[in-house]
Amino acid sequence: MKSFNFLLNGKHEEKPRNSGLTMVLDKGLGLETAESLMKISGEYVDYLKFGWGTSIVHEQDIISKKVAMYQSYDIQPYTGGTLFELAYMNNKLEEFFQEAHNLGFKAVEVSDGSITLDHDKKLECIELACSEGFEVLSEVGKKDPVKDKEFSIEEKIDLMNAEKNAGSSKIIMEAREGGKNIGIFDESGKAKEDEIDQIMNNFDNTKILWEAPNKDQQVFFILKCGPNVNLGNISTEDITSLETLRNGLRGDTLGKL
Amino acid sequence: MKSFNFLLNGKHEEKPRNSGLTMVLDKGLGLETAESLMKISGEYVDYLKFGWGTSIVHEQDIISKKVAMYQSYDIQPYTGGTLFELAYMNNKLEEFFQEAHNLGFKAVEVSDGSITLDHDKKLECIELACSEGFEVLSEVGKKDPVKDKEFSIEEKIDLMNAEKNAGSSKIIMEAREGGKNIGIFDESGKAKEDEIDQIMNNFDNTKILWEAPNKDQQVFFILKCGPNVNLGNISTEDITSLETLRNGLRGDTLGKL
Amino acid sequence: MKSFNFLLNGKHEEKPRNSGLTMVLDKGLGLETAESLMKISGEYVDYLKFGWGTSIVHEQDIISKKVAMYQSYDIQPYTGGTLFELAYMNNKLEEFFQEAHNLGFKAVEVSDGSITLDHDKKLECIELACSEGFEVLSEVGKKDPVKDKEFSIEEKIDLMNAEKNAGSSKIIMEAREGGKNIGIFDESGKAKEDEIDQIMNNFDNTKILWEAPNKDQQVFFILKCGPNVNLGNISTEDITSLETLRNGLRGDTLGKL
Repeated sequence: MKSFNFLLNGKHEEKPRNSGLTMVLDKGLGLETAESLMKISGEYVDYLKFGWGTSIVHEQDIISKKVAMYQSYDIQPYTGGTLFELAYMNNKLEEFFQEAHNLGFKAVEVSDGSITLDHDKKLECIELACSEGFEVLSEVGKKDPVKDKEFSIEEKIDLMNAEKNAGSSKIIMEAREGGKNIGIFDESGKAKEDEIDQIMNNFDNTKILWEAPNKDQQVFFILKCGPNVNLGNISTEDITSLETLRNGLRGDTLGKL
Repeated sequence: MKSFNFLLNGKHEEKPRNSGLTMVLDKGLGLETAESLMKISGEYVDYLKFGWGTSIVHEQDIISKKVAMYQSYDIQPYTGGTLFELAYMNNKLEEFFQEAHNLGFKAVEVSDGSITLDHDKKLECIELACSEGFEVLSEVGKKDPVKDKEFSIEEKIDLMNAEKNAGSSKIIMEAREGGKNIGIFDESGKAKEDEIDQIMNNFDNTKILWEAPNKDQQVFFILKCGPNVNLGNISTEDITSLETLRNGLRGDTLGKL
Repeated sequence: MKSFNFLLNGKHEEKPRNSGLTMVLDKGLGLETAESLMKISGEYVDYLKFGWGTSIVHEQDIISKKVAMYQSYDIQPYTGGTLFELAYMNNKLEEFFQEAHNLGFKAVEVSDGSITLDHDKKLECIELACSEGFEVLSEVGKKDPVKDKEFSIEEKIDLMNAEKNAGSSKIIMEAREGGKNIGIFDESGKAKEDEIDQIMNNFDNTKILWEAPNKDQQVFFILKCGPNVNLGNISTEDITSLETLRNGLRGDTLGKL
């Protein structure tokens, strides 16, 4: 039973949940440290991203143990988008899917944040990953702010719809680890509300996963969309904080939900 | 024996100490990770705050183990102020005290940072918590900067005195986790020295616990008040750093104490 | 074998390596937490600095265990420069070397970032530490930005050469934990490229260890000098990130090396 359970209010859906999803960014935690964290707060994590190409520099043995550990907490671990992009660039998609299977991953991210990838080709990759049995999360947005601004919001929404139709279970809105001067956030990390509104009004919100690495961004989305908004790129040390924000148990959202 | 003990200078009092207290903010560490940290640096921690309402989303079993673990290092763990505020708002004070007892807490924080609470009522709550056998730390200040500025320093000092007289062992000066644009810190996190002087000149300094989450703030208080100033909202990763600052073992305070 | 090893490109040299060295800053990790981290990423760490005077406030038992643990991962742990400075100030150099030996350290840092130390005297200390059997890393630069700016780049290069000749294996360019308004970084943490060029053109680059605590700084040096630049003051949580940057496995350097 939860501590002080008489103050729990159920604003945030419990697992298994279809909305209010939390995606956490693992940038290289030790296995034991990660498990210690999951013991206390794993129930608040839905997706766990092995950030960008980090898995490539870690041993198979430890990655497969981390994957299995996260899965034992009913979390869907998946490979970062940059890993897919590297495999694609190097004509190693087949090996990529095979190795992801071997390591125990049941989901992968498909993105084109750092490479140039014809969108039809990206859609094919999404379909291919689905046919390989993976849940596919796909990301819209460029890591380079200049390139990212070449796309209008209308164009982004078209890309999102096409990716959803190709089989993506969630469309991730890029904000990187830092959350500044990227996608829907300006130089100071402030959310561009008009662009966000446009996206929200034209796309199934339950399929969007907003990257929101900083607390102010998390508060913004929770106050705007409610406790059951899907948020991602949450740092491992902020898992509990986010859960309290979603339930109005921290000053920033207390009494406002 | 300490490493390089011949360089230890005893500037910072040892436990059990009445001043130079350090309050650390736990925002959801795993039990094993927290214990690993206490093994190396637990002797430098006096109070350990389970931040805001975090305990509410964690299991009783793990919270009571964390409480007992911290106590085994002669640390006083206590419930964050927002937890009290939630209990008060929901008319659950009795259940709150009971559950705090059950989990092993011997101290609680009483605050009104996020709710409107008549000050006489707050004093009653402090008295009630004392009569329930808890050490009470109370906090002065609002989490909303606009609301916080409605109080003059004179008014704050009056509140502090009343809370001390009602039984608070320490009065906490609010600065949140971030330490910017809140209470005694300006937008950039710089300390407002005139306001701090006014408080220090009009209140028993050994009863004040200054929240000072950022290193520059810690350095400011140590250089101003000496190694045995009471500081709080120290992040778990800065426990050792603060102890070296207090003893002049880091560049910022070396040779200046 | 590495996960997705078919994407590994060998841009970054493997251990034992002579360039591409990574120095990590430990500011007080618990033993178990540090070991969990080394299990997954220890092969990417060459030097491990026990930051400034932190060891002084920790027990001999835990420091010697941490030293041995790091060494078991082929990492060279060493004492922070401020520790040497404190020993020097207190006329305790002999005890300092003896205790460093007892704790298992095989390397020490010699610096004068916080104290005034005649340069001939500093060179003598470097020679003395070498004759005591230690690998010596020495640091050039003052922690106080005002004092640091009293030295021209030409003067710094002269100091560096003299320290190398006195026996330093690496010359560390000071940037502290924060990396802003210090040495080669301006107030915003941006690298001063002209000063860096001047140093690089006049000193053996394989002997320089650039402190670069922030990701943008790491990216700057890797894009400028290649994957095998020596970088230091890497935080423990960024070890894996840095390794992916060095190998073009993160967006910032992907396709640019």
